[in-house]
Amino acid sequence: MIKNLKISAVLFLFFAKVYPPMKKLILAFAFVPILSFSQNHQANLKKIYDTELSAGHTYDNLRYLCKVIGNRLSGSPGAAASVEWTRQLMESYDFDTVYLQPVMVPHWERGGKDVVKITNSAKHGVVELSALALGNTQGTGPKGLLAQVVEVKSIDQLKSLGAQVKGKIVFFNGPMDPTKIDAFEAYGGANAQRSSGAAEASKLGAVGAIVRSLSNRIDDIPHTGNQRYAADFPKIPALAISTQDAELLSQLLAEQTDLKLYLESHGEMKSEKLSYNVIGEIRGSEKPEEIIAVGGHLDSWDVGEGAHDDGAGCMQAIEVLRLYKALGWTPKRTIRAVMWMNEENGLRGGQEYAKVAKANGEKHIAAIESDSGGFLPIGFSSTGTDAQRGKLASWADLLRPYQLWNLQKPGGGADIGPLRDQGPILIGLLPDSQKYFIYHHTEADVFEVVDQRELELGAAAMAALVYLIEQEGI
Amino acid sequence: MIKNLKISAVLFLFFAKVYPPMKKLILAFAFVPILSFSQNHQANLKKIYDTELSAGHTYDNLRYLCKVIGNRLSGSPGAAASVEWTRQLMESYDFDTVYLQPVMVPHWERGGKDVVKITNSAKHGVVELSALALGNTQGTGPKGLLAQVVEVKSIDQLKSLGAQVKGKIVFFNGPMDPTKIDAFEAYGGANAQRSSGAAEASKLGAVGAIVRSLSNRIDDIPHTGNQRYAADFPKIPALAISTQDAELLSQLLAEQTDLKLYLESHGEMKSEKLSYNVIGEIRGSEKPEEIIAVGGHLDSWDVGEGAHDDGAGCMQAIEVLRLYKALGWTPKRTIRAVMWMNEENGLRGGQEYAKVAKANGEKHIAAIESDSGGFLPIGFSSTGTDAQRGKLASWADLLRPYQLWNLQKPGGGADIGPLRDQGPILIGLLPDSQKYFIYHHTEADVFEVVDQRELELGAAAMAALVYLIEQEGI
Repeated sequence: MIKNLKISAVLFLFFAKVYPPMKKLILAFAFVPILSFSQNHQANLKKIYDTELSAGHTYDNLRYLCKVIGNRLSGSPGAAASVEWTRQLMESYDFDTVYLQPVMVPHWERGGKDVVKITNSAKHGVVELSALALGNTQGTGPKGLLAQVVEVKSIDQLKSLGAQVKGKIVFFNGPMDPTKIDAFEAYGGANAQRSSGAAEASKLGAVGAIVRSLSNRIDDIPHTGNQRYAADFPKIPALAISTQDAELLSQLLAEQTDLKLYLESHGEMKSEKLSYNVIGEIRGSEKPEEIIAVGGHLDSWDVGEGAHDDGAGCMQAIEVLRLYKALGWTPKRTIRAVMWMNEENGLRGGQEYAKVAKANGEKHIAAIESDSGGFLPIGFSSTGTDAQRGKLASWADLLRPYQLWNLQKPGGGADIGPLRDQGPILIGLLPDSQKYFIYHHTEADVFEVVDQRELELGAAAMAALVYLIEQEGI
Repeated sequence: MIKNLKISAVLFLFFAKVYPPMKKLILAFAFVPILSFSQNHQANLKKIYDTELSAGHTYDNLRYLCKVIGNRLSGSPGAAASVEWTRQLMESYDFDTVYLQPVMVPHWERGGKDVVKITNSAKHGVVELSALALGNTQGTGPKGLLAQVVEVKSIDQLKSLGAQVKGKIVFFNGPMDPTKIDAFEAYGGANAQRSSGAAEASKLGAVGAIVRSLSNRIDDIPHTGNQRYAADFPKIPALAISTQDAELLSQLLAEQTDLKLYLESHGEMKSEKLSYNVIGEIRGSEKPEEIIAVGGHLDSWDVGEGAHDDGAGCMQAIEVLRLYKALGWTPKRTIRAVMWMNEENGLRGGQEYAKVAKANGEKHIAAIESDSGGFLPIGFSSTGTDAQRGKLASWADLLRPYQLWNLQKPGGGADIGPLRDQGPILIGLLPDSQKYFIYHHTEADVFEVVDQRELELGAAAMAALVYLIEQEGI
């Protein structure tokens, strides 16, 4: 560079005397080596976005996953279909390597229709509520369960009631805080009720648990999701009811404290099943041993179509590598699309992926996950060293034209978490959060509620970031 | 301030000797006067957001405007109803003053069902296309119009065809550019076809014009909108067709150049009508003569419910003042909610408002408009002096926690434009643009496609900005 500048300076002085208009031209050329670095990046990011927004495959691929395959809970036939289809899809794109990574996964089945009924409302008689059993729960079986119901707003309040809940059904009714601007924060403040409410209630002798759905809308859609029983305590039935019915039940309880609920559910943990992470790879040309993983989780809950959660992330990750093929690019470092299996009720895929990477002595420099919905991307969350996060922040000017303004939020993703001790920066695609919890874990999470442009902007954002990392390292 | 600090320093030295733990406490108090300014703003912005997100009226008000009143083209009974209802709404909120500002507006009526048909497709015979006459057009009447069709992608291409379009229907088929990240930019690149396509075609002797709808989705929804005829040339019929049908027509034309179209429409300009801008005001306590106007336009097209365009903006503007009442605040400067009439096909309300302000010697320091839909707010666009825009930018740290990151974009709003020469900074609420042109000027722009939280975040954003301006000036 210094040498170039020196030569340029000499040429400049010489030609500027001979032919003054040459000045400008020579000056321009002299600075080419200085400017070309970020100019190339800028131009290449535009190529990525232009290609995706005018001829992307993400949306059509998501349509297939949602409409033809549908939902795909770990261990289900749908999950097996999604494994095989994404494998074939990546093979059709002619990635360098496409393979399956075996992993044993838990297999829960809902087993039938979930029922929650108020049986003795003085006002309304029998009232059926919109309900959905939580994942991994043990059902009541066809005989159901009838007991009095006690409302609490939090696990702390449950604990303060102590033995008063014995023999009763605990109704967890803490809402997501609407004043939180980031909906994930509001979710984080309420989700202990769902994930460990039943376990805590059981420790106190409760016979069942129902939970207000984790939604920031008042509507009639129940939201399922994971819950974990405590060892050595009874596995009591646990079901979510819609926010609208939670409001109703709470009102009725305020007027009539002896309300009884009938619960019926049929959930059962089956034997573990063999399943797979699905992996596609384009080998790096200069530092193939440095790996950048980009992915989502292929499994979903057993309702809806797992469109935002997380079909969107999977299709975006595959699209990152497809864009390289469409643009005729070979990355300097190896890039790998990973569809992790079993994020929803076990995280086995993410754990296995990290274990195998370690055993094989692989070197991940970055792992990127999209698992916050196919909504408008606004940046990337991350966990890493100051140097890694500083490098990410150094690309702010390149990313801002694409409205990726938030590079500061801490975060990453559930499936990439297990890689942490191997040193890569962990990055999460950060979409706007306002609407995620309308659809999350419900019948309503279908292809039609994903916007094509927002989905494509997310795919392009991930491709842009992968490009910068494979070019410059991190 | 200096005096406070001196006293604090003396107290500190004294007490620190007597009772060392007092040190911290005294230090904290000593700095109260220094920190309180921005701390108060921060706390008050949070109060605005908390109130709006947990107990806002914006969404329920928009429901009423859309579902009970419905669409409200200038001069229509719906427009009159919306004037009376917003007046009553603001009176019910007990603003200091609520009044109507008379303005004469154009009055166009669609007059019947719009029809566009291919009459002679060798492949499909007669093909009816989804169509909607553009605003302000003169209809064909019941006899309709039959002529051959010629496709162009732009007005430039039309001009290059010259006399070849004589006696024909010109089909403007330039799409919105999908590679533009900002959808308003893509709209700006295509909307000359709609606004002046018919006028330019008529100058060359064409007998009709059809225009590809200004949408960034391929679907079956036609989009109306304003168009202006050229003086001294025939007022030819002009209709929009859906993007899907524009693609179909273009394909069929590629195979069969002699395609004919039958057009039928019934539009008519009626006599001008008396209408009103609706204005509500809370008087400032310290500088009442300095006015901050915040508003939207009350009129809409005659299809759908004018939910995003611009019921959202109107309800957000009223909410700004309502939040002051709910919080028990009196602003230092006067704040005024303005529902401008006739933005869509005349801009008479905006012009009259500016004229009256000037005649009355009013001093507007800022005019803020929300007319880009009730979507996720990402910042504010503006037009003003460097000092004004610098002041706006100085609030970046206060606004970023609410994801209002973009304060740089030039802009404002159609209705506030006429105020420009009176010196206020012109500001537009800047929502994310990706989805606006799915609904813009269509049957699909209804209450149900507005998200409650996004709408409320927009109302709170405008209230936050109004608060900073009334406190600090600009």
